Amino acid sequence: MSEHDKNTRHLARMQRKKAVVDTKIESAKISKGLLLIHTGIGKGKSTAAFGLLARALGHGMQAVVVQFIKGRSDTGEEAFFKNAANLQWHVMGDGFTWETQNAENDLASARKAWDLVQACLQDETVNLLILDEFTYALKYGWLSIDEVVAALKNRPPMQHVVITGRAAPQALIDVADTVSEVNLLKHAFQAGVQAMPGVEW
Amino acid sequence: MSEHDKNTRHLARMQRKKAVVDTKIESAKISKGLLLIHTGIGKGKSTAAFGLLARALGHGMQAVVVQFIKGRSDTGEEAFFKNAANLQWHVMGDGFTWETQNAENDLASARKAWDLVQACLQDETVNLLILDEFTYALKYGWLSIDEVVAALKNRPPMQHVVITGRAAPQALIDVADTVSEVNLLKHAFQAGVQAMPGVEW
Repeated sequence: MSEHDKNTRHLARMQRKKAVVDTKIESAKISKGLLLIHTGIGKGKSTAAFGLLARALGHGMQAVVVQFIKGRSDTGEEAFFKNAANLQWHVMGDGFTWETQNAENDLASARKAWDLVQACLQDETVNLLILDEFTYALKYGWLSIDEVVAALKNRPPMQHVVITGRAAPQALIDVADTVSEVNLLKHAFQAGVQAMPGVEW
Repeated sequence: MSEHDKNTRHLARMQRKKAVVDTKIESAKISKGLLLIHTGIGKGKSTAAFGLLARALGHGMQAVVVQFIKGRSDTGEEAFFKNAANLQWHVMGDGFTWETQNAENDLASARKAWDLVQACLQDETVNLLILDEFTYALKYGWLSIDEVVAALKNRPPMQHVVITGRAAPQALIDVADTVSEVNLLKHAFQAGVQAMPGVEW
C-alpha cells in the first residue's frame, strides 16, 4: 500500500471513529456533582485524588481534603498544596491501626473526622471534597455505611466527592458515579525498594 | 466479650501486625529512581501522575511533564501547576487521532515530543519526568519500543519516571518498578454525564 493510500485509509477510519465519539459526547448532557471512588490494592488511589484536586483548584473551585487514618503531616502533597487558596486540608487520623494499637482512639478519631465531613456535605460552597483512605473507617466499623450513604446522597447536587481506600463496600459503589479499581501488577516495595520521598509520600 | 477484653485482643493483634510490617520495611533498603506505569482503561491514570507531581514538588524536586496526544491547553491541572517553581510543562500532542485525522502529523508530533523526552532522560537535574498518555505513541508505532526501553534504562539512577496510558506494552511493564492497572467498574460518562470541569479536565 502506498503512503497516500495509507493516509487515505487512516483518514476514513478516523472520520468514522470521530462520528462514534461525537455521538457519545452529544448524548452525554447531564451536569452534576460526581461521586468518584478509587479502590483496589494498587498504587495510585490517593495520588489520583490529589491530581483531581489540582484540576479542580485550577478551575477556581473550593476544595476540602480530609485524611482518615494517615497521621503523618510531612507529606509532599500537603507541603505543596497547603498554601493554595480555596483549599482546606485536614489530617484527622492518628496513623495505621497497627501503629496506634488503640481501637478506642481510632474510633474517636474517625468519628471526629466524620463530623467535619458531614458539615462539608451540607455546605454548597465546597465544590470538591476528598475523603482520603476513608474506606477503612467503614471496614473497621467505625462509621455506619447507611449513615454515610445517606449523607452522600443528600449533599449539594453540584458537589464532587472523591473517596479513596482499599475494599470499598458494595453499598458505596452502588451510589457512586465513577469507580476505578486499581490493581497491583508490580510494586517497587516488593522488590526491596524503600518508600521514596516524592513517590510514596 | 467485655470492652476490656476486646481492647486487649485488638492490641495483641495490632502488635503482631506491626512486627510483620516493620520487618518488611526493614528489609526494603534500596534507594533508586523508579519507573511507574499507570495503565488500564479506568479513570485515574493521568490524575495519579499529577498527584505524584504535587508530591514531588512538595519535596522541592525538579519536574518535567510531557503530554503526548493531548492537544488542549485549558486544563485545570495545567492552570494550577503552570506557575509552580521547578516545573516545566509541555503539551506536545495535537489531540486524539480521530480529531487530527492526519497520521503523518501525529507521527511528527510524537517524534518531536520524544526528542524532548530523550533530553530529559539524560539530564540528572530532572528528578521526576511524567510522560502523560505516552503508551499511544507505542501502540500506533510512532516510536520504537526498543529505543524507548533503552533510553529509560540509561537514565540517571535517581530519576523517577511516570508513564500513563491504556495498554502499556509488556516490554515496558517488564522494565517498570511499579505498575498499576486501573480497571473501570463504572464511569459517569456511560450514564450520560458530560465531561465535568475539575473532574475530567
